[in-house]
Amino acid sequence: MLVNTRTVRIEWGDCDPAGIVYYPRYLAFFDACTSALIERALGMTKHEYLKAYDFGGHPLVSTRARFLIPTRFGDDVTIETTIGAFRRSSFDVRHRLLKDAQLAVEGFETRVWVQGAPTRGTMKSAPLPPDVIEKLSRG
Amino acid sequence: MLVNTRTVRIEWGDCDPAGIVYYPRYLAFFDACTSALIERALGMTKHEYLKAYDFGGHPLVSTRARFLIPTRFGDDVTIETTIGAFRRSSFDVRHRLLKDAQLAVEGFETRVWVQGAPTRGTMKSAPLPPDVIEKLSRG
Amino acid sequence: MLVNTRTVRIEWGDCDPAGIVYYPRYLAFFDACTSALIERALGMTKHEYLKAYDFGGHPLVSTRARFLIPTRFGDDVTIETTIGAFRRSSFDVRHRLLKDAQLAVEGFETRVWVQGAPTRGTMKSAPLPPDVIEKLSRG
Amino acid sequence: MLVNTRTVRIEWGDCDPAGIVYYPRYLAFFDACTSALIERALGMTKHEYLKAYDFGGHPLVSTRARFLIPTRFGDDVTIETTIGAFRRSSFDVRHRLLKDAQLAVEGFETRVWVQGAPTRGTMKSAPLPPDVIEKLSRG
Repeated sequence: MLVNTRTVRIEWGDCDPAGIVYYPRYLAFFDACTSALIERALGMTKHEYLKAYDFGGHPLVSTRARFLIPTRFGDDVTIETTIGAFRRSSFDVRHRLLKDAQLAVEGFETRVWVQGAPTRGTMKSAPLPPDVIEKLSRG
Repeated sequence: MLVNTRTVRIEWGDCDPAGIVYYPRYLAFFDACTSALIERALGMTKHEYLKAYDFGGHPLVSTRARFLIPTRFGDDVTIETTIGAFRRSSFDVRHRLLKDAQLAVEGFETRVWVQGAPTRGTMKSAPLPPDVIEKLSRG
Repeated sequence: MLVNTRTVRIEWGDCDPAGIVYYPRYLAFFDACTSALIERALGMTKHEYLKAYDFGGHPLVSTRARFLIPTRFGDDVTIETTIGAFRRSSFDVRHRLLKDAQLAVEGFETRVWVQGAPTRGTMKSAPLPPDVIEKLSRG
Repeated sequence: MLVNTRTVRIEWGDCDPAGIVYYPRYLAFFDACTSALIERALGMTKHEYLKAYDFGGHPLVSTRARFLIPTRFGDDVTIETTIGAFRRSSFDVRHRLLKDAQLAVEGFETRVWVQGAPTRGTMKSAPLPPDVIEKLSRG
């Protein structure tokens, strides 16, 4: 499977009064990393790939995360993102956030590939295009 | 168990280009709802209860969420929050986010009660005070 | 002019490691308050009024803010929002954020009324509908 | 004056239902850019420089911004940050956000150098250390 690696600087504004990351920010990092993985596999920005595949996005069905080591502003962390599994119209994404080469946060997402616009209430799942699966599966 | 109910207006700024909530915002709502539950049980703001119990907060060990129905800006949703379980120094919190009386999002958190300051690296778990357990357990 | 007043609880997640509000959050509060003012004047949610007036929104041309008194998590603040001025296709909004009846933050926005979709590059300014001006001008 | 340049990818989660950046995110970018400028001048992370100079941070007194060209997810923008002026215990920061070499957003901040902890109500302004001024002034 393709692995995308991104370095993120934890900013002052990502942290809460305890001085550590406000955890919803991790989920925002992970969301951007999922897009970055797909962007890299397809060689397009998200803006481009939504158009190219004429679809409405890949919203979450479920997510879970484990927080092992706190991170704080000034830390540079590395996030490794890869696909866990493909199903007909959904897929799993795994994120490993490393601080000083140690696993600090682990995230798991199940996402669905949707056609139509959620805002118009026309959102429905659609099969993942075979070439998307193929490109995300390359090592 | 005590249940805290909060109504949240989904704002334009909570939503993404698909017009639906950007899901890390749900986690932020849930975090505020956990604090609100404890505030209500103890009759103090979070600022006050951190001082009163001389502790560093209740950071997450893990979280998971299921997204069943999308919400969009202008929606008023209701979040019901309650304790799932107590352990010696950790506890589980459950959130049910309802839109038009239907379960739209479900969140689960495991949190640890900590002493000391995470920023100084002195954070460690501590037993939950008995009166906190008792006050959160009242129906 | 119509004045809309909203009470906002400053949450843990709105604050930075100094324990005070991370200031971009004030701008997010103000954005929601501008929508709330228009919602109240028109008797519709933002979702509804974007449709009813067939327009693309009221993005900012400029903003400025002054920060006089810090606020911290647990504070309940009051935000008073009103229109400062109308022009042909733009308008000014003023926000006064009060803490314990004292002015803590002051915000000013100039917004443009736009037709079309910014994402498609078709966004252009349009005259403010007379009834919108009239409804926002009522005391 | 020292100029710090940072490239930022506009993410899906930075954007609102109009598909363009939710403007408080610009302020968050600018805040991180101010810290990055100081970090670069002093050769320390913010975490380190708060300790080294034994101070409480550089909160905003006021800010203003002009929004000229919208940006959307997938855009890579460049932010140039420099000091506008120094005063005894405050300083001005200017940010120029460029999209395709065109000025898209301009931001101005006045910040105060503070000693003590805002949360304990002991925050007060302090003179900027001469070596900080000297290091930020280098071209």
